[in-house]
Amino acid sequence: MKTRISAMLVLLVFFVSLGCKPQDPLPSWHDGNTKQAITDFVTKTTQKGAATYVPEKDRIAVFDNDGTLWSETPLYFQAFYIFDQIRIMAPQHPEWQNQEPFASVLRGDLESALAGGEKALIEMMMATHSGMSTDEFRASVSQWISSAKHPATGKLYTAMVFQPMLELMNYLRANGFTVYIVSGGGVDFMRAWTERVYGVAPPQVIGSRIATQFVMQGNTPVLMREPALEFVNDKGGKPVAIHHIIGQRPLMAFGNSDGDLAMLQWTSAGNGPRFAAIVHHTDNARESAYDRKSHVGKLDQALDLIEPNGWTRIDMKQDWKRVYPD
Amino acid sequence: MKTRISAMLVLLVFFVSLGCKPQDPLPSWHDGNTKQAITDFVTKTTQKGAATYVPEKDRIAVFDNDGTLWSETPLYFQAFYIFDQIRIMAPQHPEWQNQEPFASVLRGDLESALAGGEKALIEMMMATHSGMSTDEFRASVSQWISSAKHPATGKLYTAMVFQPMLELMNYLRANGFTVYIVSGGGVDFMRAWTERVYGVAPPQVIGSRIATQFVMQGNTPVLMREPALEFVNDKGGKPVAIHHIIGQRPLMAFGNSDGDLAMLQWTSAGNGPRFAAIVHHTDNARESAYDRKSHVGKLDQALDLIEPNGWTRIDMKQDWKRVYPD
Repeated sequence: MKTRISAMLVLLVFFVSLGCKPQDPLPSWHDGNTKQAITDFVTKTTQKGAATYVPEKDRIAVFDNDGTLWSETPLYFQAFYIFDQIRIMAPQHPEWQNQEPFASVLRGDLESALAGGEKALIEMMMATHSGMSTDEFRASVSQWISSAKHPATGKLYTAMVFQPMLELMNYLRANGFTVYIVSGGGVDFMRAWTERVYGVAPPQVIGSRIATQFVMQGNTPVLMREPALEFVNDKGGKPVAIHHIIGQRPLMAFGNSDGDLAMLQWTSAGNGPRFAAIVHHTDNARESAYDRKSHVGKLDQALDLIEPNGWTRIDMKQDWKRVYPD
Repeated sequence: MKTRISAMLVLLVFFVSLGCKPQDPLPSWHDGNTKQAITDFVTKTTQKGAATYVPEKDRIAVFDNDGTLWSETPLYFQAFYIFDQIRIMAPQHPEWQNQEPFASVLRGDLESALAGGEKALIEMMMATHSGMSTDEFRASVSQWISSAKHPATGKLYTAMVFQPMLELMNYLRANGFTVYIVSGGGVDFMRAWTERVYGVAPPQVIGSRIATQFVMQGNTPVLMREPALEFVNDKGGKPVAIHHIIGQRPLMAFGNSDGDLAMLQWTSAGNGPRFAAIVHHTDNARESAYDRKSHVGKLDQALDLIEPNGWTRIDMKQDWKRVYPD
């Protein structure tokens, strides 16, 4: 009887130790300097008693979205929402058949539609992003994102998020970090799906926004989206928005383009340990390879500043075992 | 021996039951309809299994600051910061001796200084709130708030917060609510002290703000405060800011003036259970009594809308055992 109990105890200890074996929190990252830099930073800022310990309330990590958490080629995905909405709305706008840039979109000629540059893009954005309530806009994006497919991969856009970055956000949250998205994308466009896809709730999403007005429709208060771009959350706008909305300097920042440079500079200039990294798109086989000369996610000035600043370059081809979830 | 153990057990049960006796979470509130309405709402939204249960992530409570969490007479306290700063900065501005509204402030004649209305106030605000970095401004407010005294009570301004509202915020947080401040006051003015005084951390503070620019001073990134009022977080601006920054509709809203009306309307128009309340200043003996005709915290239109909307009126004189912490 005693022997049997001893055998059971041994088995119990064995299973308990199995259960306690530390699992790799970043299984889609190759072992190497990049992964080590991330885990070293998290370890030194979360170990009680360490000189570099940071209390939970100050563990703020900010992530750009386009090109950092999901793909952004051949165009920022929000642009495809604009084109799809123009097609959906066309019956209510017969004048668009002969009016650029809308006519080009309706002919399927996106290159001509975009030839008008920023002015044309903003005109299309306002036509599709304003004139409705915030609730109506959110419903429209939710419907689109759950069905629309990327023209090149045929995948849902939300299937083109980066698996290693999903793991990284989970890893940081498990270590007491609050994860924010700080993106040039529209804040309400992102909030329609970021909680489900990234686990990032609406209060932790910071983005560009258009003017919004509070109006009473009878007894019902409504927030109406107006055709004016109020804030562009890019470049110097990112640290400004971080300050206005979070009110604390982040501990970690992740981006992929010159649009993220100011956010990385602002983050790493804080006192004590800070971490900044740039996702470098180097993988034409599994995703895309682009940097200095790209029209989306241009990475030029910031690429040269990685080394002098002691930042981390995440090399998509070298550092990631896989790119997308399967 | 057995008897002695039994006696000890009885004592033990007695002390445990003493320790478990539910303490009143709102000891500075008189028992009555108002307190009951608050605790009933919290109970019904936090009891698992109830049809009115709300998950923690949606338990958002928004509080106005001036007149709701601390006093606001004879002037919004931030105005006293402006006057004190003008006196401190005067040696660097000899021209102010003959230039209104500054000259009146320097003579101690605040009434004349304010006679210029909003234009004069904004001019004084810009002179004292811009032209420095966000870090410098915060340091200035921190120093002021820890030493400046209210002209009538002689108390520190932070000693003029409402004890019943401190208890209410603690009670809500203990029940899984996230407490936000949504105030017309300057967001950076408030963040310098709200965490220490209210337990409300910077990311949960929403306020008015002036334009801010990201600039590199040599290798150091700095956020500079510019002399332009960018956003006034009052009236319809409150639900707009709640939407932009929180991205979710609050479950509970607390205000005290017509400036909070839109926030209360927006909150209570949500689906499911919602709670909205107005602090009514009825207590000239312990604080102040004012509503429809006041130049601060005017409560007129919203006062008439309490009953038809089923909102709660917090009657300072009737509902609060004490006003300030002692």
